[in-house]
Amino acid sequence: MTEALLQRFRDTRAQSLAFCAPLAIEDYGLQAEPFTSPPKWHLAHTTWFFETFLLQEYLEGYTTPEPRYTVLFNSYYNGIGEQHPRPQRGLLSRPTVDEVRHYRAHVDAGIEQLLADTGHAHRTDILTRVHLGIEHECQHQELFFTDLKWSLGVNPMLPTYAEPTTNESPVPMPQSWHIFNGGLVETGFDGDGFCFDNELPRHQTFVEPFALAGRLVTNAEFAIFIDDGGYQRPELWLADGWDAVQTQGWTAPHYWRERDGQALEYTLHGLQPRADANPVCHVSGYEADAYARWANARLPTEHEWELAAATAVSPAGGVDTGCYHPQPAEGEGLQQLYGDCWQWTQSAYGPYPGFRPSAGAIGEYNGKFMSSQWVLRGGSCVSKAEHLRPTYRNFFYPPDRWQFSGIRLAKDGQQ
Amino acid sequence: MTEALLQRFRDTRAQSLAFCAPLAIEDYGLQAEPFTSPPKWHLAHTTWFFETFLLQEYLEGYTTPEPRYTVLFNSYYNGIGEQHPRPQRGLLSRPTVDEVRHYRAHVDAGIEQLLADTGHAHRTDILTRVHLGIEHECQHQELFFTDLKWSLGVNPMLPTYAEPTTNESPVPMPQSWHIFNGGLVETGFDGDGFCFDNELPRHQTFVEPFALAGRLVTNAEFAIFIDDGGYQRPELWLADGWDAVQTQGWTAPHYWRERDGQALEYTLHGLQPRADANPVCHVSGYEADAYARWANARLPTEHEWELAAATAVSPAGGVDTGCYHPQPAEGEGLQQLYGDCWQWTQSAYGPYPGFRPSAGAIGEYNGKFMSSQWVLRGGSCVSKAEHLRPTYRNFFYPPDRWQFSGIRLAKDGQQ
Amino acid sequence: MTEALLQRFRDTRAQSLAFCAPLAIEDYGLQAEPFTSPPKWHLAHTTWFFETFLLQEYLEGYTTPEPRYTVLFNSYYNGIGEQHPRPQRGLLSRPTVDEVRHYRAHVDAGIEQLLADTGHAHRTDILTRVHLGIEHECQHQELFFTDLKWSLGVNPMLPTYAEPTTNESPVPMPQSWHIFNGGLVETGFDGDGFCFDNELPRHQTFVEPFALAGRLVTNAEFAIFIDDGGYQRPELWLADGWDAVQTQGWTAPHYWRERDGQALEYTLHGLQPRADANPVCHVSGYEADAYARWANARLPTEHEWELAAATAVSPAGGVDTGCYHPQPAEGEGLQQLYGDCWQWTQSAYGPYPGFRPSAGAIGEYNGKFMSSQWVLRGGSCVSKAEHLRPTYRNFFYPPDRWQFSGIRLAKDGQQ
Amino acid sequence: MTEALLQRFRDTRAQSLAFCAPLAIEDYGLQAEPFTSPPKWHLAHTTWFFETFLLQEYLEGYTTPEPRYTVLFNSYYNGIGEQHPRPQRGLLSRPTVDEVRHYRAHVDAGIEQLLADTGHAHRTDILTRVHLGIEHECQHQELFFTDLKWSLGVNPMLPTYAEPTTNESPVPMPQSWHIFNGGLVETGFDGDGFCFDNELPRHQTFVEPFALAGRLVTNAEFAIFIDDGGYQRPELWLADGWDAVQTQGWTAPHYWRERDGQALEYTLHGLQPRADANPVCHVSGYEADAYARWANARLPTEHEWELAAATAVSPAGGVDTGCYHPQPAEGEGLQQLYGDCWQWTQSAYGPYPGFRPSAGAIGEYNGKFMSSQWVLRGGSCVSKAEHLRPTYRNFFYPPDRWQFSGIRLAKDGQQ
Repeated sequence: MTEALLQRFRDTRAQSLAFCAPLAIEDYGLQAEPFTSPPKWHLAHTTWFFETFLLQEYLEGYTTPEPRYTVLFNSYYNGIGEQHPRPQRGLLSRPTVDEVRHYRAHVDAGIEQLLADTGHAHRTDILTRVHLGIEHECQHQELFFTDLKWSLGVNPMLPTYAEPTTNESPVPMPQSWHIFNGGLVETGFDGDGFCFDNELPRHQTFVEPFALAGRLVTNAEFAIFIDDGGYQRPELWLADGWDAVQTQGWTAPHYWRERDGQALEYTLHGLQPRADANPVCHVSGYEADAYARWANARLPTEHEWELAAATAVSPAGGVDTGCYHPQPAEGEGLQQLYGDCWQWTQSAYGPYPGFRPSAGAIGEYNGKFMSSQWVLRGGSCVSKAEHLRPTYRNFFYPPDRWQFSGIRLAKDGQQ
Repeated sequence: MTEALLQRFRDTRAQSLAFCAPLAIEDYGLQAEPFTSPPKWHLAHTTWFFETFLLQEYLEGYTTPEPRYTVLFNSYYNGIGEQHPRPQRGLLSRPTVDEVRHYRAHVDAGIEQLLADTGHAHRTDILTRVHLGIEHECQHQELFFTDLKWSLGVNPMLPTYAEPTTNESPVPMPQSWHIFNGGLVETGFDGDGFCFDNELPRHQTFVEPFALAGRLVTNAEFAIFIDDGGYQRPELWLADGWDAVQTQGWTAPHYWRERDGQALEYTLHGLQPRADANPVCHVSGYEADAYARWANARLPTEHEWELAAATAVSPAGGVDTGCYHPQPAEGEGLQQLYGDCWQWTQSAYGPYPGFRPSAGAIGEYNGKFMSSQWVLRGGSCVSKAEHLRPTYRNFFYPPDRWQFSGIRLAKDGQQ
Repeated sequence: MTEALLQRFRDTRAQSLAFCAPLAIEDYGLQAEPFTSPPKWHLAHTTWFFETFLLQEYLEGYTTPEPRYTVLFNSYYNGIGEQHPRPQRGLLSRPTVDEVRHYRAHVDAGIEQLLADTGHAHRTDILTRVHLGIEHECQHQELFFTDLKWSLGVNPMLPTYAEPTTNESPVPMPQSWHIFNGGLVETGFDGDGFCFDNELPRHQTFVEPFALAGRLVTNAEFAIFIDDGGYQRPELWLADGWDAVQTQGWTAPHYWRERDGQALEYTLHGLQPRADANPVCHVSGYEADAYARWANARLPTEHEWELAAATAVSPAGGVDTGCYHPQPAEGEGLQQLYGDCWQWTQSAYGPYPGFRPSAGAIGEYNGKFMSSQWVLRGGSCVSKAEHLRPTYRNFFYPPDRWQFSGIRLAKDGQQ
Repeated sequence: MTEALLQRFRDTRAQSLAFCAPLAIEDYGLQAEPFTSPPKWHLAHTTWFFETFLLQEYLEGYTTPEPRYTVLFNSYYNGIGEQHPRPQRGLLSRPTVDEVRHYRAHVDAGIEQLLADTGHAHRTDILTRVHLGIEHECQHQELFFTDLKWSLGVNPMLPTYAEPTTNESPVPMPQSWHIFNGGLVETGFDGDGFCFDNELPRHQTFVEPFALAGRLVTNAEFAIFIDDGGYQRPELWLADGWDAVQTQGWTAPHYWRERDGQALEYTLHGLQPRADANPVCHVSGYEADAYARWANARLPTEHEWELAAATAVSPAGGVDTGCYHPQPAEGEGLQQLYGDCWQWTQSAYGPYPGFRPSAGAIGEYNGKFMSSQWVLRGGSCVSKAEHLRPTYRNFFYPPDRWQFSGIRLAKDGQQ
């Protein structure tokens, strides 16, 4: 098992660099908004995580190549100390990309050494934390894509990350509805594998009967919402959502473009025709909620989603396919649970009954964000499938649009 | 029953004016922050509510004294139309106080006329809406006090709304803990009386065993939290809360003052010594949450609070006592549920399963605010007791501090 | 002479109150923007000025009715001490209007007593400062009107300060040009009467030949500028002016309104038809400059204006006429120098060679504002004629539009 | 003469690239504030200038390598068209540095071709504009240094642009004063060489007798100002300057640092001890003005400075010395006029009498900035000496601190 962990560590670390291969050196520092960290920063911060929570604590005699990285690449761990201001991550032209690569190699060697020490007094903690570090890096690989897309997208040159894939644009499948009985059920993680602390403890909850849509809302469906005045009708919106429409000037999903009458969409494969059958993507929670109200439906709760997903296929697809854009639904049953868009739920992100955050600074990972955010479930085209599971709780603020976030509808069961 | 309703209408309308009696004309226009509406605006808006939802719809031949009031005194009802910008309510020196009083009298006469028409085709709707208008005005009476306190409180002269009451400042009672078994229970309104739409439908929910504190956290207890570095320790705070501490510069509850080494508190009775036994008040949800974490406890969920309150005494006290400040706990059992401070819960404000907002613009009353706010339960020293009940859901944003909001602790049951 | 001064003191003090007569009590506290002080504040601050610089310094045994007024009604005199924040002047519902009137009477009595003491050791300083206090109050009387107009103007009810005057709207006079030879000349105050320190010393300056327009630019002329795309053509604007156009969204002078195809203007006499022959008013320095460039002319320098004015009629008209709006030009020669609109010059407000500010806190009156402002010359329909003279230097920031500010054109002499 | 111009063209273009030699690719995109353009942008914009004003107008058959550069690298020329938003220049990771170098080579070849066409119908205009383009590029070379210093200076790693030079830190020379009689004099450019339009026309002005300091204010002198409470005493400051002190939190010149009791200064040669004899640098106009007031002196007018400079040595020193930091004064007479710090004057930047901007978009070069800025005279350690002259008018806003700006004192002549 250690061998498998080590292999996954090596693969994950290598993949972070491989994802950067198409970049110019000039791209590594891009930060268009405070919430979009530069590629170089992701490479360094994931390394800092292994250094801080493993090498600094457990590897005797370890020395860092640069003590100032402790502050520069700390994201938000107050328990570790001061942090370089988030909006200024893009101003760190130094360390250079090469220096960050050396930092990665230095820390990787340390982890290899630590994992080789099978008799270490804290062996169990070490394995657990290496696992956490790998999952942490998977999350940042996904953020790498979402952040990069946003930052490239503000450049009028609209740079391309990857070659366009053939986009056959099939006819959209009709929507289907799947009924679930609910009742007094259990949700939350329960098993041998890895999970984050916020998926615990598994606990009882009461769920009314409900119906869940078989696939995500498509671009074509969302375009009808727009044509029907969706962005001009306050009665469709939560009050905070309507405020956001006014102050942000939203009139369409973030990457939609019109040019010479053509419906386009900026993607990591460049500016592309907007395919009718593709799921609508990069919508905020407010837009998802307004669409659902317009469609005489609602967003699912996170418990509903999890109940349904527990009956369905395992995570697959995602970033390993080499296509960095959601694809149309195909087939029967519940589709598009994991490999296309994260799915907004109506559930506010909060602690499960009996939740206990991990001890120490690691405990800042999830618990302290349990306020004002909404839970998203599933996974997206830039998620790694092996990183996902039915109980996984992603969370963002309802106005956020830079993730690959889409819409799955739900209804009360008896309708 | 109509007679009782009519009487309550008259009493409520009269009381809004009576609450204004201690004001100077100059005070009626005060708006220190966008969220604090001027007294005059409250007087006019509650009148607009009766005019818009009753007289304009149901009283044949009704004419308004001033058509422009439709926009000026619309708070947030997009279904009715445009609204005067909220931050500019304090800039409306006209209409004058006298003109607003005439507007009130004009509308009151209309309502009397409408209620006298016992054969009206929409008699049931009319009675329901008059009831809603009364409850609406009760809410604004409470806002009148919280808004006025804030706006007077920015004046270095620290004006007094009412004479000081004797403040004997007893020794604080020890805290007690009350155990509840939870289980699969029902919450939400169920009965003959009035409730808001957001208290419906009554529904099942599963609650783990829990313990609830017998009284609110006191000033003395909160001072220990501060002395223990409460406002300097990020590990005690939600991330958004810690941000608020930094950006707002919070170091104590909103109205706390130190002068020449004396611990003081601004109240509607003027600047007063800060009594140890009094509940801490005017804390944000973030401060309540941080205090709970420091105290090795947590905030209750709204379901827990409601379960406990259903077993306890009925609402009493509050604004009718003539004391506009929370008072120390006395006696056994669950104390201070209603007449002192609203109590922050950890529950995000959202729809109950199967929630349906009322039809039309009235439906904007509650449902559209179900995002990013937290539920508070109970009632405060400026609430009207007859307006409250165990199922009542109040809601504010977690950084808000201008309400009479305090802290009741909870713990998991098996601790 | 003391008698004349005393009489002018009494008249000025009485007139400030008389100007307030049309107000409702609710109007006294209005402050729509930080730069528009409430009427009550003007009444109190001018009183504070006499109290601080005369009674506190020279009247033995003087006691203030309220020590906190020292801070509340200090405008910007750091030499005196702390100041209540300017944007919060409108939040001072207390002291009430009555209390401020008592404050005025209290201080007035003190000044009478001080002036009666003909043998006072500082008699000369006292007389000088009383004179300064009177001129200071004249300035605030003018600000009373400009501030009130702005603050009433944000109320959709558009309240009226005074009854409309008959507005016959004559045909505009043709523009005339008046040639001046310039040369090595003297500017600045030189005489026995009162002047502010910034008008000193009289000094030599070299002025090229120039031509000055005989009257102000009219509404009709400015409308042509707008129709010609004036607000859409960056080449007409200073860079900072063009920024202001974009960020402020300017498309016309501040109080211009269109309603049902009718050209209107908000005035202190209510919403009125916009008379072609009236001078355009409430334009910023940037708009004045852009208009001049469009008209193939330029703004005069302050020296040019002063040279020309020295040859013309004495100040007349203004606020004593009871008309609070600029009027059309009539007659021959240089018209509209004083009683209609302040006239933007191209001169940055700075010190004359050898300028020395007055000693002490009184020295903060003018000198510290000599940065980033432009000089305006003349006087307006709400200025008091006896308060004006050819050497008077008014100054505002170039984006300011709330004064009665208009446009007089100039050209190089040889054109 | 064409040959000399061509040679200067080649030298200037080559030098811009040479100045970038010490940079990492990652540094080319840095923009820490909207006013600090990235190195890559300077390289591209200066090229755009030659392309737009010469090749696009005069070189038949010229095609640009990338039409979108027209918008991307337009700084502020509204006459040319739309501009990429200034605050987002740092987000243009593409075009890459290599692509910008190709753009430069492409345009350079075009200019060579154009200059070779000696019979071109617009030969004179072409030569004039090439000259302007060279001077324009000299200005951007200087901005390259000031912008880069600011942007590197926000990195906690404090990167070094060039190796430290030996800093012997001599004893400061005593200050000397030089008397000038003034009178009716002429200022402005008058000669055969190049000048900007804002230096014209040469014109008469009257100057009172004055004294000018022989050298710039030193670090040691400025430290005494600070120790004397300079940043805490409002009476020393213009009102706008005092506001800036409060809102910006200024307590020292921009790059001053204290570490372990040592007085340091960030320079392009890294963090260095702060030499007593060096001129104080990177102070705003407000700080310069406050220091002068504290020192019982004043800032010179631009006329005074020019009169004095006309009697003194020609420009020398500056960027060609390879030292990118101001150096101590040595020798007799007026020192440090050009090669150390730009010198704030008290003169607002405005048009000379009879000023006419150049025709077309080129006319936006200087004239449209004649509002709210102050004139600085001389030149700095990062200016090119051949680019300077006594009549040169530099201009910045009085709060600006990112230029190498220092203080030369003046006094009235008769003191």
